[in-house]
Amino acid sequence: MSAARRSWLRPSLDWLLVFLPVALAVRYVSAWNNQTVLFVVAALALIPLAGWMGHATEQLAHHMGEGVGGLLNASFGNAAELIIALIALRAGHIDVVKASITGSIIGNLLLVLGLSIFCGGLRFQKQTFNKTAARASCTALILAAAALVIPTVFHVAAARAGGWTPLATQRLSLAIAVVLLGTYAAMLRFSLGTHKQLFAGGSADVGEHAVREDEPEARWSVGRAVAVLLGATFLVAWLSEFLVGAVEAARHSLGVTEVFVGVVIVAIVGNAAEHSTAVTMAMKNKMDLALAVAVGSSLQIALFVAPVLVFASYAFPHQLSLEFTLPEIVAVVLAAFVTDQIAGDGESNWLEGVQLLALYAIIGLLFYFLPAAH
Amino acid sequence: MSAARRSWLRPSLDWLLVFLPVALAVRYVSAWNNQTVLFVVAALALIPLAGWMGHATEQLAHHMGEGVGGLLNASFGNAAELIIALIALRAGHIDVVKASITGSIIGNLLLVLGLSIFCGGLRFQKQTFNKTAARASCTALILAAAALVIPTVFHVAAARAGGWTPLATQRLSLAIAVVLLGTYAAMLRFSLGTHKQLFAGGSADVGEHAVREDEPEARWSVGRAVAVLLGATFLVAWLSEFLVGAVEAARHSLGVTEVFVGVVIVAIVGNAAEHSTAVTMAMKNKMDLALAVAVGSSLQIALFVAPVLVFASYAFPHQLSLEFTLPEIVAVVLAAFVTDQIAGDGESNWLEGVQLLALYAIIGLLFYFLPAAH
Amino acid sequence: MSAARRSWLRPSLDWLLVFLPVALAVRYVSAWNNQTVLFVVAALALIPLAGWMGHATEQLAHHMGEGVGGLLNASFGNAAELIIALIALRAGHIDVVKASITGSIIGNLLLVLGLSIFCGGLRFQKQTFNKTAARASCTALILAAAALVIPTVFHVAAARAGGWTPLATQRLSLAIAVVLLGTYAAMLRFSLGTHKQLFAGGSADVGEHAVREDEPEARWSVGRAVAVLLGATFLVAWLSEFLVGAVEAARHSLGVTEVFVGVVIVAIVGNAAEHSTAVTMAMKNKMDLALAVAVGSSLQIALFVAPVLVFASYAFPHQLSLEFTLPEIVAVVLAAFVTDQIAGDGESNWLEGVQLLALYAIIGLLFYFLPAAH
Repeated sequence: MSAARRSWLRPSLDWLLVFLPVALAVRYVSAWNNQTVLFVVAALALIPLAGWMGHATEQLAHHMGEGVGGLLNASFGNAAELIIALIALRAGHIDVVKASITGSIIGNLLLVLGLSIFCGGLRFQKQTFNKTAARASCTALILAAAALVIPTVFHVAAARAGGWTPLATQRLSLAIAVVLLGTYAAMLRFSLGTHKQLFAGGSADVGEHAVREDEPEARWSVGRAVAVLLGATFLVAWLSEFLVGAVEAARHSLGVTEVFVGVVIVAIVGNAAEHSTAVTMAMKNKMDLALAVAVGSSLQIALFVAPVLVFASYAFPHQLSLEFTLPEIVAVVLAAFVTDQIAGDGESNWLEGVQLLALYAIIGLLFYFLPAAH
Repeated sequence: MSAARRSWLRPSLDWLLVFLPVALAVRYVSAWNNQTVLFVVAALALIPLAGWMGHATEQLAHHMGEGVGGLLNASFGNAAELIIALIALRAGHIDVVKASITGSIIGNLLLVLGLSIFCGGLRFQKQTFNKTAARASCTALILAAAALVIPTVFHVAAARAGGWTPLATQRLSLAIAVVLLGTYAAMLRFSLGTHKQLFAGGSADVGEHAVREDEPEARWSVGRAVAVLLGATFLVAWLSEFLVGAVEAARHSLGVTEVFVGVVIVAIVGNAAEHSTAVTMAMKNKMDLALAVAVGSSLQIALFVAPVLVFASYAFPHQLSLEFTLPEIVAVVLAAFVTDQIAGDGESNWLEGVQLLALYAIIGLLFYFLPAAH
Repeated sequence: MSAARRSWLRPSLDWLLVFLPVALAVRYVSAWNNQTVLFVVAALALIPLAGWMGHATEQLAHHMGEGVGGLLNASFGNAAELIIALIALRAGHIDVVKASITGSIIGNLLLVLGLSIFCGGLRFQKQTFNKTAARASCTALILAAAALVIPTVFHVAAARAGGWTPLATQRLSLAIAVVLLGTYAAMLRFSLGTHKQLFAGGSADVGEHAVREDEPEARWSVGRAVAVLLGATFLVAWLSEFLVGAVEAARHSLGVTEVFVGVVIVAIVGNAAEHSTAVTMAMKNKMDLALAVAVGSSLQIALFVAPVLVFASYAFPHQLSLEFTLPEIVAVVLAAFVTDQIAGDGESNWLEGVQLLALYAIIGLLFYFLPAAH
């Protein structure tokens, strides 16, 4: 591994790759077979692989030119989450998939952004970033939160009127998914096209792509990028099978609910690379990049991954709707609102980081204490 | 029609007046009698008449001097909506009236303002407006949204305590209506009196009145203004009778609910003139005027028309309360909040217009899919 | 009483001390015994005593140096409310205690801040204050509001899953109380330490302490400060016993609910001194101080007094959870949100004061009309 590579992700999470052979051993050596251990090691091994997928996508995007490359990045920056969710969807774990959507949104906004602002704020009295870009992202977030509230409002109101059916919620979800994807397209046109000067580095997108501009490193060839992308994707899909297969056993032995697994565990695993990058950027006082990674990643989940999963679920026995549980809705709305409050003035300080982390703690407590549905 | 007149409302909606004789024919020629057609043509004919009422009010206000004229404008700028609502109230269509209140608020904020910001943003990279004036209006909006939430919270909490009665909700609504009217009076004192320099043109009010300052045109005599106002008011009342009388039949043949009629159809018909004016202003980069029309019109509905309808309903068999359905409340709260988010920083771009329109689409889908109450 | 003392609290509330002997007489002269009268005169006598406790705390803090003194002030600025609440808690009036928490938060934000901004705005066209400090406080408020929503969301979701127990809510409340106290500690570190230059006077805290810097007056000796503090504390505790003992009888003869007593009466009594100070500061165009008193006092209640009461309740037969009723939650969320909207741009005018007072009126109406739970 080159020096340039090591500098990209510092502190590097690549040492977690040691869990890849461990996971294979636990899965295929029958004497060592233990579902809970398998769940944990598969989760740990997925962390660096998700990072490698993102990195290979960026390298490939670099060869594509600004427009197509930006689009590639913005669409597949969260490809690892997408793969894990698709495999869980095929296995019928609808609640885990929904919880991992809300968990990713909350985790990126409160944990990743909170820790970034806190760590950056410890070194700098006040940090600033482009207010218009931050407000545009936050408005998109609030729109996404609003969209996730609507199907539940529909359920309550339609049930009261005596006319609710699961099919109606499914059709409403499908229509909302189309609107969300359209909003995401508009957001990309804004940040990669008409108003790209507002965004970090002058040519960055709403995702991690931004970071590349900032950190010069040895570029990969197209061949190498494609090879790494395919290899990492294959391994992510393989490990996701282990993770999803072991989820039931792990839940019972760890004593947590499906929602807790999705909201806390899957969301942290899928976003560890973003986490590391955003904190590093914040500590270098590059808050525009830190925000682009943390908020941009949430937006990708809400406006791209979630609608795509709704469409994809029509290939599987169980369809995915956008109707979430009350705690999930409250958590997403609070996270979007407090993020907007903190990012909307274009400046940050360490206290704002603590406030985001405190909200994450309170929401985490809510999910921790929630009993499983009977 | 003079050149000045034509320039006032461009693209003019006056050609829709052809539907006035059509509506009369459908209503009174028994062979042509068709309630659904009557509903549609009456709605179309109401659009230019509502515009003429507003225009005649502005002309009259011009003769009254700044203070009284501003007050007249601010109070009767939405007189057409008020007349339609009063006639629907007399006929006992309480749910249609409530839905047209929420629909007008949402429509002005999301559809009218959204399209204005979008169209203006296509021509200008960034548009700006007075931040203090916009925030004052948005705070009033949020207050109105809060007021519409309270009676429903009261219902739920009082029912849980075992002491809810319709009379209690009615008395609470009456008291809230008094507070809202008082807030509206304060808002007018602020925008027409103590802080008028913040508002568009230096002497504008919170409504469409503002536009007059901007677009010089031949002034009407008092006699002409009064005659047009009386004539248009008479025709609006007459057509409203047709519209309200045909609402039941139209609902069944079009397969939509009372709430959908109010939220989408009545609200669009009553606000088409504002729509046209606001978009025209935005495309001329006069965002202060576009906001004054769109947000000001919402405020008039929420803080003036709604309380007046509550008071007026005591003349009819069925009283109007301020208790709305859950979807209506959620829609108004989301619309007020997202408008505030977008207008609160004193600048706009095309993406913000798309975001407002996307929220309108999502809320429209909710009302479209909602079944009728049995 | 010295001239300096008189100038501190102008208009002085000290004349209300005449109700102290009246309260003793009504309580101990059996012929005059009347519980409703006792409730009213005890409440009136508590007003100046709460002010004296606050003033003595400030004087003592002055001798302690900046760090410890600021901490003392920030922790015991609302000691009178804390004492009243502890005595009500011991007597098992859990609902009164909860209502006085939410009532204090709402009262300080809407009534105290509203009247301050309104009165200041009548004299000055526009008043300004430090935006970063105001936003930090408002974010903390929103966080506190979010924390008070969570236990109710937990109750609803856990009950739906079939696994709700009062003990689970209690444990969740305890965990949230720890997070809130931690947030308060961070807020103090920010306002007294790392970012104290943002706050009023260059060395002020988030509470009334700030006022001292501004108004030079004769300093008290440590002995005098301790003596006044002990004496006032003793009298506050004594009168609180009367107040709490008479609450049931007063409720019935005045025809109001426990929640109304807490939200309106206890909250106004406990915060009258803050009220007087904040309005005086606003009229002198010292908006940073007015905000520090009003918003800071709300924060103290939400982030310090409420958690401490949760911990303290373990010494009594009935534990205090952080689960509030729906009207209380809606009221706190609306108050926090509208305050943020108004204070978030660093400037104020009289209309914003009217808007805060209008929201207070609407929320007051809600609690007035609410029936008692059976």
